[in-house]
Formats: sequence, structure tokens, C-alpha cells
Amino acid sequence: MSAKNTVEVLIGGKIIHLTGYESEDYLQRVASYLNRKHGEISELTGFSRLPAETKSLLLSLNVCDDYFKAKKQAEVYEEDIQIKDREVYELKQQIVDLQLKLEKLEKGRSAK
Amino acid sequence: MSAKNTVEVLIGGKIIHLTGYESEDYLQRVASYLNRKHGEISELTGFSRLPAETKSLLLSLNVCDDYFKAKKQAEVYEEDIQIKDREVYELKQQIVDLQLKLEKLEKGRSAK
Repeated sequence: MSAKNTVEVLIGGKIIHLTGYESEDYLQRVASYLNRKHGEISELTGFSRLPAETKSLLLSLNVCDDYFKAKKQAEVYEEDIQIKDREVYELKQQIVDLQLKLEKLEKGRSAK
Repeated sequence: MSAKNTVEVLIGGKIIHLTGYESEDYLQRVASYLNRKHGEISELTGFSRLPAETKSLLLSLNVCDDYFKAKKQAEVYEEDIQIKDREVYELKQQIVDLQLKLEKLEKGRSAK
């Protein structure tokens, strides 16, 4: 098992200690993303007057939205891959048929 | 522009009013997902003794982790699609070559 990593990051102007088995690079990417998201929601009208709990929930909801979009995108790609797999299978079948036809014709020609 | 939807949902045992232009079904799915995530982190040792802000941050980090994984998955699928696109292109090229060869042979045979 790899060792735990701890990184000191800045999220929403606060210093946070992130600890996890993930790489430091990953933890930094997570922090940087969360910080950017926090920056985005901070620009909403009236954000500064919201209770801390609502602010946190807004951040979670915002990340959640990105997650649902990425998940949907992955599902669309997965369906696309299945369609392409079928296409590849059919094309390969077509190639085998053509090769057989060609072989037959060439044999017939050399037999003459 | 579609009308705003508001749904009353339960996240971490609290009633929350979610408002957005997304469908009610989507808002419910978001809430249900966040509620599940909240349930997961609540089971961590010592969770109940953490300050509210840390609890919220843990939720965001957890969702963030799912987001990064889904994003990575979408990227892997996208690369896979590009590989399959190239394969389809090459197979189609191979079919054209075989068809030309076949056509030539058939012409040669009928000319005899």
C-alpha cells in the first residue's frame, strides 16, 4: 500500500490540509479545481450574505453538476464505442467475404 | 427559456430547497446522489465530531473524486473512439482496394 500524502492547499481563501493515498499531484489538482469552482460561485449575486452551510452546499451542487455531465459524456462515448465495435465487426466480415470471392476468382483463372 | 423548478429534497437529514432551470427529475437525482455521498462519509470514524465546515468540505472532495474519475473515464473512451475511427477508416480503405481488384478480375474474365 502506498504511503499517505498530505498537501497544504488553498480552497476559497482558506488553508486546508488534504490527506489521502492519492498522489500529491492528484490532491493538488482536486484543490485547484475546487478553488476554481469556489471562485465561480463566489461571483453569484448575494453569495457573500449566504450562511456558510448554504455556501458549502452550493459548492457541492456545482461539483455534482460537473460530475453528472462528465458521467453522461462517458455514457454517450460508451454507446458510441459499441456502435463502432459493431461497424468494425461488419466491415471485417465484408473483407472476409470479398477475400473469399477474390480467391475463388483467382483460382478459377489459374485453372484455365 | 424554461421555467425555474424548485424541489424540496433531503440531504444529510436536512430539508433543502433546490432551485434551477434543470428538470425536477434532474434536481431529484442530484439530491439523491448527494444524500448517498453524505451517508457514505458519515460512516467515517470521528465524522460526527468534525466541524460543520470540514464535513461540507469532505462532501465536496468526495463528489470531486467521482467527477475526476468520470472525467478520466470519458477521456479514455474518447481516445478509444479515435482508435476505432482510424480502424474503421483503414478497413473501409481495404474494402475499396479489394472491390477494385475484384472488379478488375471480373472484367478480365468477361473480356475473354
